[in-house]
Amino acid sequence: MTNQTLILIQCPDAVGLVALISNTVSIHRLNIVTMREYVDEEQKLFFVRIVCSGQPEDPARLYHDLEVRLPGTATIKINPPKVKSLALLVTKEHHCLGDLMVRHYFNTLQADICCVIGNYQELEGFTKRFDLPFHYVSHENKTKEEFEREIIRILQANAPDYIVLAKFMRILSPEFVSLFPGKLINIHHSFLPAFIGANPYKQAHARGVKLIGATAHFVTNDLDEGPIIAQDIQRVNHSHTVKDMVKAGKEIEKSVLSKAVELVLEDRVIISGNKTIVFE
Amino acid sequence: MTNQTLILIQCPDAVGLVALISNTVSIHRLNIVTMREYVDEEQKLFFVRIVCSGQPEDPARLYHDLEVRLPGTATIKINPPKVKSLALLVTKEHHCLGDLMVRHYFNTLQADICCVIGNYQELEGFTKRFDLPFHYVSHENKTKEEFEREIIRILQANAPDYIVLAKFMRILSPEFVSLFPGKLINIHHSFLPAFIGANPYKQAHARGVKLIGATAHFVTNDLDEGPIIAQDIQRVNHSHTVKDMVKAGKEIEKSVLSKAVELVLEDRVIISGNKTIVFE
Amino acid sequence: MTNQTLILIQCPDAVGLVALISNTVSIHRLNIVTMREYVDEEQKLFFVRIVCSGQPEDPARLYHDLEVRLPGTATIKINPPKVKSLALLVTKEHHCLGDLMVRHYFNTLQADICCVIGNYQELEGFTKRFDLPFHYVSHENKTKEEFEREIIRILQANAPDYIVLAKFMRILSPEFVSLFPGKLINIHHSFLPAFIGANPYKQAHARGVKLIGATAHFVTNDLDEGPIIAQDIQRVNHSHTVKDMVKAGKEIEKSVLSKAVELVLEDRVIISGNKTIVFE
Amino acid sequence: MTNQTLILIQCPDAVGLVALISNTVSIHRLNIVTMREYVDEEQKLFFVRIVCSGQPEDPARLYHDLEVRLPGTATIKINPPKVKSLALLVTKEHHCLGDLMVRHYFNTLQADICCVIGNYQELEGFTKRFDLPFHYVSHENKTKEEFEREIIRILQANAPDYIVLAKFMRILSPEFVSLFPGKLINIHHSFLPAFIGANPYKQAHARGVKLIGATAHFVTNDLDEGPIIAQDIQRVNHSHTVKDMVKAGKEIEKSVLSKAVELVLEDRVIISGNKTIVFE
Repeated sequence: MTNQTLILIQCPDAVGLVALISNTVSIHRLNIVTMREYVDEEQKLFFVRIVCSGQPEDPARLYHDLEVRLPGTATIKINPPKVKSLALLVTKEHHCLGDLMVRHYFNTLQADICCVIGNYQELEGFTKRFDLPFHYVSHENKTKEEFEREIIRILQANAPDYIVLAKFMRILSPEFVSLFPGKLINIHHSFLPAFIGANPYKQAHARGVKLIGATAHFVTNDLDEGPIIAQDIQRVNHSHTVKDMVKAGKEIEKSVLSKAVELVLEDRVIISGNKTIVFE
Repeated sequence: MTNQTLILIQCPDAVGLVALISNTVSIHRLNIVTMREYVDEEQKLFFVRIVCSGQPEDPARLYHDLEVRLPGTATIKINPPKVKSLALLVTKEHHCLGDLMVRHYFNTLQADICCVIGNYQELEGFTKRFDLPFHYVSHENKTKEEFEREIIRILQANAPDYIVLAKFMRILSPEFVSLFPGKLINIHHSFLPAFIGANPYKQAHARGVKLIGATAHFVTNDLDEGPIIAQDIQRVNHSHTVKDMVKAGKEIEKSVLSKAVELVLEDRVIISGNKTIVFE
Repeated sequence: MTNQTLILIQCPDAVGLVALISNTVSIHRLNIVTMREYVDEEQKLFFVRIVCSGQPEDPARLYHDLEVRLPGTATIKINPPKVKSLALLVTKEHHCLGDLMVRHYFNTLQADICCVIGNYQELEGFTKRFDLPFHYVSHENKTKEEFEREIIRILQANAPDYIVLAKFMRILSPEFVSLFPGKLINIHHSFLPAFIGANPYKQAHARGVKLIGATAHFVTNDLDEGPIIAQDIQRVNHSHTVKDMVKAGKEIEKSVLSKAVELVLEDRVIISGNKTIVFE
Repeated sequence: MTNQTLILIQCPDAVGLVALISNTVSIHRLNIVTMREYVDEEQKLFFVRIVCSGQPEDPARLYHDLEVRLPGTATIKINPPKVKSLALLVTKEHHCLGDLMVRHYFNTLQADICCVIGNYQELEGFTKRFDLPFHYVSHENKTKEEFEREIIRILQANAPDYIVLAKFMRILSPEFVSLFPGKLINIHHSFLPAFIGANPYKQAHARGVKLIGATAHFVTNDLDEGPIIAQDIQRVNHSHTVKDMVKAGKEIEKSVLSKAVELVLEDRVIISGNKTIVFE
């Protein structure tokens, strides 16, 4: 991973793009290790993720060369892999936080956790055992605006690359969401779009489903409607109470969120409209 | 399977039911091979499925002895295993029909297919290759009532134990459904309750899901809302077009429907309100 | 699928291959729709599968242009999609044959089944219902050589692209196998390399496993050791008898073999040593 | 869970056991909440797990009443749920330890971790963050006997109910194993019985498998041959290096071991010969 260059491109589709891009990259003496591309035929959009060995001598020039040659308005990211930073928002449940924290502690997360913000104090002790700052921001006796303003202040001071809602149980306002476009990752405790909103396990139990799921997605202003990054399911049966479903569900929530965070941190996820392109 | 007795009981929950039932069965000199019970704590209902070796000398007496001892109004089925009969309703898609037909041909279905009814002729040739009657009942130029009356006439003449909607793409009227309570098994091409109604794969594609599913359920008068018998899913990604999803989905629809039919035919499924108890 | 060109290349790895190949293709006025490549870093081998829109005006010239530019000895296949042909070898079990046959009948297999060869007559009636030739070649009272010579004669007369061992329960001799390199696809009823050889479900039952599997692979002269194309598993538990495992296993065998055959027919599988590259 | 009695019985199979046992239990005024039984037809053994509401007034008498009525030599456990204790043995890898530790910290493990023993110091810091004793017992410059004697001394001082080998990479001697029959739980990093022994992911990579797995099992004196408790798998493909497989495998190892430990702690697992009965 050490001496590699990552190039992510999104542009209108056109004839000859693979040849054009691989040529441009090769002129800059980068050798393509892996290249994954996708054409959205409906939207006529082209996406590519290229891993090259080596570093470009002149990254600005590479950027420029790509930009002038690519059709329409291209989004280009040239990204020598670097450690990103994460802020975590939590409420009371520990399972997602715990998993991310252990990965962070043992340096397998590929990101620094800059801070944990909780609207309850339940997870403060755990966070501090890992020598990470825990900011307790209660939502009580505050307007939503005041509550969010406090969180925003902390986030802006830390400037994380991504903000992970690791079972953060407050709905964020459009104003909040619009401050962090493409940066908010949430775990929803159902197989979206089934059971949108509150108490999905209660809904799932009432409906008598035989599978429960979890969905990690970017947050937009439509509740539980943002671009999906990863989903998984687990079998349940008639004997599962709501409590049993919650317990079984936590295992999937934990693994799906960690998987989604990993995919995002490795720059494998591109947002396109309300969907994601995921180059696994 | 040959010399076994199957007992299914559903009654209000009470203290000592397992002892009471196993005693009663033992007085009739039946030995319990397997016993699976479930208590619905919310509804205070007790369900049990018992497989005994041997046959009761006097089944009516066994029924009576159970009935008088069980609390409240009990539903009791004493069921020396016998071959059941199925009617299949189809439209144009062949995958579910094909799978059931091959199982039927090789006697692994544990049921006779008495007839296939199609509102198109597409599957007539295939059905006839297996020497099974195909009834072509077009819905065109008919009121829904007329259309259904024709189907009902065929069904009543055949008196099937269950009616399998093996990708039958017409919505049945409440009148139709009420004629066959607990007998109509449908395959819905989504992971219910996500994507209720028409074109679920189109909906799934638009939503950018990472898993697609299929749901086999009993039909009630709420569209796609009847008791779920079995569900399964398959992974998809951004590169799946609607057509790819349809293709991938057919594999799950096929296996989920066949699984559900098998569970029902083996008397492993009890309907309770809008849910199923499935003793796998 | 209709107006597309498929290009498969395998050659020693080198710097700039993606650029070189995409240029060459673009000179021939083919537009790359999807391109999947893989570099085996250990073996220093490069593999690519390219789908282009359109047909090359001069396929021989395209082949030549690629050949002279690619390093070392390259294997190049330029493959306007055409319907391939399959021969099926069977014994007594019907589940894999049945599934392939239904797909063939409804034209979703993307191949013609030219013939079915069985060493028992059990599946003759079923095959004939689909108007396909069934060749009964008993192995009894024959040497292995004589038995195989008869099969070889039929295969050579039909010249299939692939030969699918759809639960063919005789071990083929090295001489037989060497006549059809890369053309023999087998389904093994276990999660290889667990339970190599006879009676895998009996072995699995004795070992008390909690999952059983199935493996589709190309046949080489090492028993059950050829390149794996696809695998899948199903959960079992202590209550599964050997017979239950066999029954559950058939469902996976069926779907894994059909999946593998589909991948091969779509030219998504490249054999490299004892492994496969599968561009799904 | 608070006012429940758990009864586990294992005895030779006989006619009328369910009636006999449920009667005996009912005489002691316990009401059966759930009852799961299994008959091993080959070994002619009967197993049952009963959850009753309430506590027996005289547990010794209940035990005695069951013992005298049950056929042959019965194993009976009457088990008012109590918190069990675990010792963990580790080497350098943290993923299994981390997951168990987080569950322990938040009281969802249903057991106390009494100590962690490591043959390297890598995981000492992490363990101490949770205020748990870490015993560093190096294997270097010691005979196996000396090394194990040190571990045994610590284990005997702590008297754990179970000893979890959470990626402990030393093979234990028959003498060690025989001191803790039915108490040693190991996680093996493959889908046993595939890839027994060292470097399973290297073996899996060399074999070109499409699925990798993990197996939690009780330890006996046959390497990797003890009774299997739980297994799971994950898809891989040609592009996974050995390192990628190791990484993907860790996720399954972690969840499979935690699942197995949970099943054992809830007294859902009965060892019978070289297999387990798992009442999930």
